[in-house]
Amino acid sequence: MTATFTLAVDAMGGDKAPEMVVHGLEYAAERHPNAKFLLIGDEARLNTLLGRYKRARAICTVRHASETISNDMKPTAALRSRQSSMRLAIDAVASGEASGLVSAGNTGALLALAKIVIKALPGIDRPAMAAISPSARGDVVMLDLGANVQCDVRNLVEFAVMGDVFARTVLGLTAPSIGLLNVGSEELKGDDTVREAAEILRASHIGPQFHGFVEGHDIAAGTTDVIVTDGFTGNVALKTGEGALKLIGEFLKQVFTSGIIAKLAYLMVRPGLDRLREWLDPRRYNGAVMVGLNGVVVKSHGGTDAMGFAHAVDVAMDMVVHRFNERIREDLARIGLDKRTPAEKNGRDQKPGAQPGSTDDTHLATA
Amino acid sequence: MTATFTLAVDAMGGDKAPEMVVHGLEYAAERHPNAKFLLIGDEARLNTLLGRYKRARAICTVRHASETISNDMKPTAALRSRQSSMRLAIDAVASGEASGLVSAGNTGALLALAKIVIKALPGIDRPAMAAISPSARGDVVMLDLGANVQCDVRNLVEFAVMGDVFARTVLGLTAPSIGLLNVGSEELKGDDTVREAAEILRASHIGPQFHGFVEGHDIAAGTTDVIVTDGFTGNVALKTGEGALKLIGEFLKQVFTSGIIAKLAYLMVRPGLDRLREWLDPRRYNGAVMVGLNGVVVKSHGGTDAMGFAHAVDVAMDMVVHRFNERIREDLARIGLDKRTPAEKNGRDQKPGAQPGSTDDTHLATA
Repeated sequence: MTATFTLAVDAMGGDKAPEMVVHGLEYAAERHPNAKFLLIGDEARLNTLLGRYKRARAICTVRHASETISNDMKPTAALRSRQSSMRLAIDAVASGEASGLVSAGNTGALLALAKIVIKALPGIDRPAMAAISPSARGDVVMLDLGANVQCDVRNLVEFAVMGDVFARTVLGLTAPSIGLLNVGSEELKGDDTVREAAEILRASHIGPQFHGFVEGHDIAAGTTDVIVTDGFTGNVALKTGEGALKLIGEFLKQVFTSGIIAKLAYLMVRPGLDRLREWLDPRRYNGAVMVGLNGVVVKSHGGTDAMGFAHAVDVAMDMVVHRFNERIREDLARIGLDKRTPAEKNGRDQKPGAQPGSTDDTHLATA
Repeated sequence: MTATFTLAVDAMGGDKAPEMVVHGLEYAAERHPNAKFLLIGDEARLNTLLGRYKRARAICTVRHASETISNDMKPTAALRSRQSSMRLAIDAVASGEASGLVSAGNTGALLALAKIVIKALPGIDRPAMAAISPSARGDVVMLDLGANVQCDVRNLVEFAVMGDVFARTVLGLTAPSIGLLNVGSEELKGDDTVREAAEILRASHIGPQFHGFVEGHDIAAGTTDVIVTDGFTGNVALKTGEGALKLIGEFLKQVFTSGIIAKLAYLMVRPGLDRLREWLDPRRYNGAVMVGLNGVVVKSHGGTDAMGFAHAVDVAMDMVVHRFNERIREDLARIGLDKRTPAEKNGRDQKPGAQPGSTDDTHLATA
């Protein structure tokens, strides 16, 4: 018998919430029968839905929230809303009532609220957004995806430590290889920030796993299990890859619907194409994780369906069950970043007013 | 009768040089019968080759170069080689003997030599690398692709001006739309550098063409005709897109060769798939251009074939014939960047020792 964990769930976030969320928990109930879910949102609507989703009802406790954070609400406005479903989910994690939370709501609001209310792990300068992408050699973890548009050496090193733990915890790898995204693989390439971060990583406890610099094409090639980069580059790279896949997907759709012969050909290779589609299924990669917080925070894509939401719940459960944050804390102690003072930071420092990226579409979409 | 232009050609750069180069000029001779080519390299080998490629011979003058810049030579070493084919081609442009040059050689060496010997256009702070990519809505120009790993506001604005002229000159557009790559499309997203650059562009003569911020997925979607970004992000984005396309290409190859039925299906949709392959053909997009120099410098992919090299020659000819540099000079005068002093610069300033990216693979490869 495994221990019981509680996850808070923002029932009102997402395009098809709250039904999509409750339906997603119906799937989650099968996979995590020992978990408990604190389902937060419009009590009346949630109770009606739980009448239809019996398995979800068995694992959920409903908590009423009178407000909802809309998708276009600015983070500053979201911070003022104390009774929103998102805020109450965050409060439950901050108070220790829940070990983590899942929300398909407004990304910027979730990030801002989580940083302010749940706070960063001791020793972590900046929490980051991480997600899993498909590659030619298995799943790849990439971070940061937009939480920090400018990063210094320390941030990149912390991202590597957190990415390593993420790959071990969620992907189940023993010694994930780690690459630092750059404009070339030679040691002299890039700017001082990436070069200094590479030096620190090489000398650290994860040195044996550190592959060195990787380039954009290494993401899809799966050259390393973890790709570390600043939030600006990571956000652009993720969306560029998604865009390229979507372009091909649309072109292929045209090819296979261009006439009766093409449609017949489609039927003949359908199993293979279905495998491709399944492999790139955005739902499989749903769940961008805010790593480096005092609790597990998973952001589901806003447009996801129940199955995608259940995947985001899986990610949160993996992180909670496998002690994600405790392991980060242990590893940070080993790398000794705490001994570095802020004055030692250099590189692309955060400027006042720098706005994080939209990562509402942090998955590889294929149309 | 159009005017005659001379292009210098580095005959020794590229994996299959010099034969690939001379063969490429055989194609170019058909398309540009009025052009003259100064073919620089090993005289004996070139004369033998020109014996086989008669049309190329008719338009070429051979100049002997006793040295060759290898692909792994550091830019500093390349600078010391005064008799290399690449150096003599650059000298020919610097002296005005040729209007431009094409080389499939070492990218870093070419960039360094061009900046030092040919020099930047008056009013241009930093030359950039630009290239054309396919998108759902036609060809897209992206820059910088790695010449400058850190860029300030002024650099981004200059890239926009040069990208606009490039799209008009090479793509033949009347009023190309211009997007500034960012982590979100809202005005508040990103850092001070992109926000300030956006403000300047909005108020400038290309304001009506300025679409505002675009995101990674907008590259393949073709949301704008020109994508402006710093060299770090541009290099990563370009290679990430290439990598994603290559991944799908390999998967499709597997699907269509997985058995006799799949092979039959392939034959049935072959015209459509051939169109896809042709559309994404790296040779069509061969020719990364170093914009902002006192002469036209086109870098062909090192692994290209004769047809790809001929495409790079086309790009160089388009730029020369359509007065690319004169038009940049006119537009820079209109935007008035010259009045900004270096002290006004801010943002991601270049640090000493920042190394440009490898852009030897600046094309969208599809396997």
